Amino acid sequence: MSSQAEPSLQEIRAIIGEFPAADAASGAAAAERQGQLTKPAGSLGRLEELPVWLARWQGRPKPTMERPRVAVFAGNHGIAAHDVSAFPAEVTAQMVGNFIDGGAAVNQLSAWVGADLRIYEMALDQPTADFTAGPAMSDEDCARALAYGMMSVEEGFDAMALGEMGIANTTSAAALCLALFGGEARDWVGHGSGVDDAGLARKVAAVEAGLAANPEARDDPFEALRRLGGYEIAAIAGAVIACRMARIPVVLDGFACTAAAAVLHGMAPAALDHCLVAHRSVEPGHGRLLEAIGKRPLLELDMRLGEASGAVLALGMLQAACACHGGMKTFAEAGVSGRET
Amino acid sequence: MSSQAEPSLQEIRAIIGEFPAADAASGAAAAERQGQLTKPAGSLGRLEELPVWLARWQGRPKPTMERPRVAVFAGNHGIAAHDVSAFPAEVTAQMVGNFIDGGAAVNQLSAWVGADLRIYEMALDQPTADFTAGPAMSDEDCARALAYGMMSVEEGFDAMALGEMGIANTTSAAALCLALFGGEARDWVGHGSGVDDAGLARKVAAVEAGLAANPEARDDPFEALRRLGGYEIAAIAGAVIACRMARIPVVLDGFACTAAAAVLHGMAPAALDHCLVAHRSVEPGHGRLLEAIGKRPLLELDMRLGEASGAVLALGMLQAACACHGGMKTFAEAGVSGRET
Repeated sequence: MSSQAEPSLQEIRAIIGEFPAADAASGAAAAERQGQLTKPAGSLGRLEELPVWLARWQGRPKPTMERPRVAVFAGNHGIAAHDVSAFPAEVTAQMVGNFIDGGAAVNQLSAWVGADLRIYEMALDQPTADFTAGPAMSDEDCARALAYGMMSVEEGFDAMALGEMGIANTTSAAALCLALFGGEARDWVGHGSGVDDAGLARKVAAVEAGLAANPEARDDPFEALRRLGGYEIAAIAGAVIACRMARIPVVLDGFACTAAAAVLHGMAPAALDHCLVAHRSVEPGHGRLLEAIGKRPLLELDMRLGEASGAVLALGMLQAACACHGGMKTFAEAGVSGRET
Repeated sequence: MSSQAEPSLQEIRAIIGEFPAADAASGAAAAERQGQLTKPAGSLGRLEELPVWLARWQGRPKPTMERPRVAVFAGNHGIAAHDVSAFPAEVTAQMVGNFIDGGAAVNQLSAWVGADLRIYEMALDQPTADFTAGPAMSDEDCARALAYGMMSVEEGFDAMALGEMGIANTTSAAALCLALFGGEARDWVGHGSGVDDAGLARKVAAVEAGLAANPEARDDPFEALRRLGGYEIAAIAGAVIACRMARIPVVLDGFACTAAAAVLHGMAPAALDHCLVAHRSVEPGHGRLLEAIGKRPLLELDMRLGEASGAVLALGMLQAACACHGGMKTFAEAGVSGRET
């Protein structure tokens, strides 16, 4: 992360007020086409909805999914010192090495879908501060992480699939959700990468201590992000912002990734209209979070890995949906009789 | 359909008693490998289960999904004369033309997944008999349709995705399910390709009349198939049988396809151990049928098209799962620390 001429938190906050709307005309044209293709109207279910959603954000009636990018952000967390993960904090850097060497799930899935995979390593030797003792990030560090995520977005991609790697980040995500949406710490905490019940209790205690040390987190979504989030979580929020400005559809992964995007929902519910949630994680906070932001996930495959794995699977479904939308013949083209009225 | 030296219903029935079991050793080796890959154990959810299931039937610890075949069987139904579909019966043949010309959903999806798509047209100008007046098929016709489906299976394919096209066949499938599993006609009947409420009432009446005219259908699954099924439904049952003998994993599509396979479940519950149900159709009988045969579908995408569309999507998920299983590094290979104990 460089420090040159980066936007302040206030400047990034202002961008959200300037978010563009979808291209309704392209969406309507895509929906009309779906009604003419050789199948009973509606019979492809969500495979009909997806091209219409893509059309609205790509701004063309026949959306494409030939050039998706997968962005995985990795960060370390001071809260990891509270023994809230089944894995040691060094695994974040080790898994980044595995991503670069091509050995992780996201590598195989990105190759399967033909996506451009980028790994964004965020100062892994400098974890965020322990949020049970104060804010996880300074204003400057949080703004820098957001800006870093924004820079991962380039024009010309058909969609961005976002994901994260960060030992202890389900604890950070749980604290963030508690600040954004209320409830009890235990509503948002789960077994993450596989902690036992004692570990779960430590996670609940860490989240409660985090909110007690950062009461201001409840007052403002960006303050919640800065005080309870992490570098990779802020970067994901930044990528969601930059995709919206570039009208690039976003595919969100599991709990930590969706929690990052939820910061923007907290500022303006329509801020996530360009985002699809790929799947429902088995991490229990994810289901609650999806309800809070009003998103129905595409897949339910009992996954809880992170690293954008579910989001890349959803890219495959988007490709399949675009193939049907673009390649099927209409009733008239195929000479097939329509419904009897 | 030729008529040369085909097996009798009795001979096909006997094959089911000789069904081979899975290769437990390959499955165990695949499960062991899953536990060593660089992810928290279990965190890929069903993407971990699928390679283990494939390994059991393909008989190798690293299953492959490079050569899948998609088989779509098309048949016409005498019951269509009862006005039980939103589309006229001529659409079966018109859609077969569309499949051959490459204009249907299954064409785009098969190309997406790189599958070998075959369309099996079954005497479309000779529909089955109206089952409200007696058996839909003679013994010979039913055996011939089963054998035709068996012939679609060739050694060397990594999996077979099965599907159907046949105007009025959700009415046939509903009658078949009622005979196999009991309940009321309305439990198994839905809006299919889009009939209105009056059409739904005609479907319920047709199913009730079918059972009244064919009480023997309740006594034996093969009799249920012969009396209430159709050529494409029998062919799917035949393909499931032949895949089992060749230990080729099967991916079943929606309601009519799963009902065809359920005939074999009725004869021996383990007969479908080599079958995955791709998705839960919105046709309400499908959910009830999945419960009856004890299968959890992979996808829930609100689809109800048939023509193997959901099954081919699931082939994509199987490819993704095999890519992870085969390509990911183990903790030892990647130098990543395991769980803290």
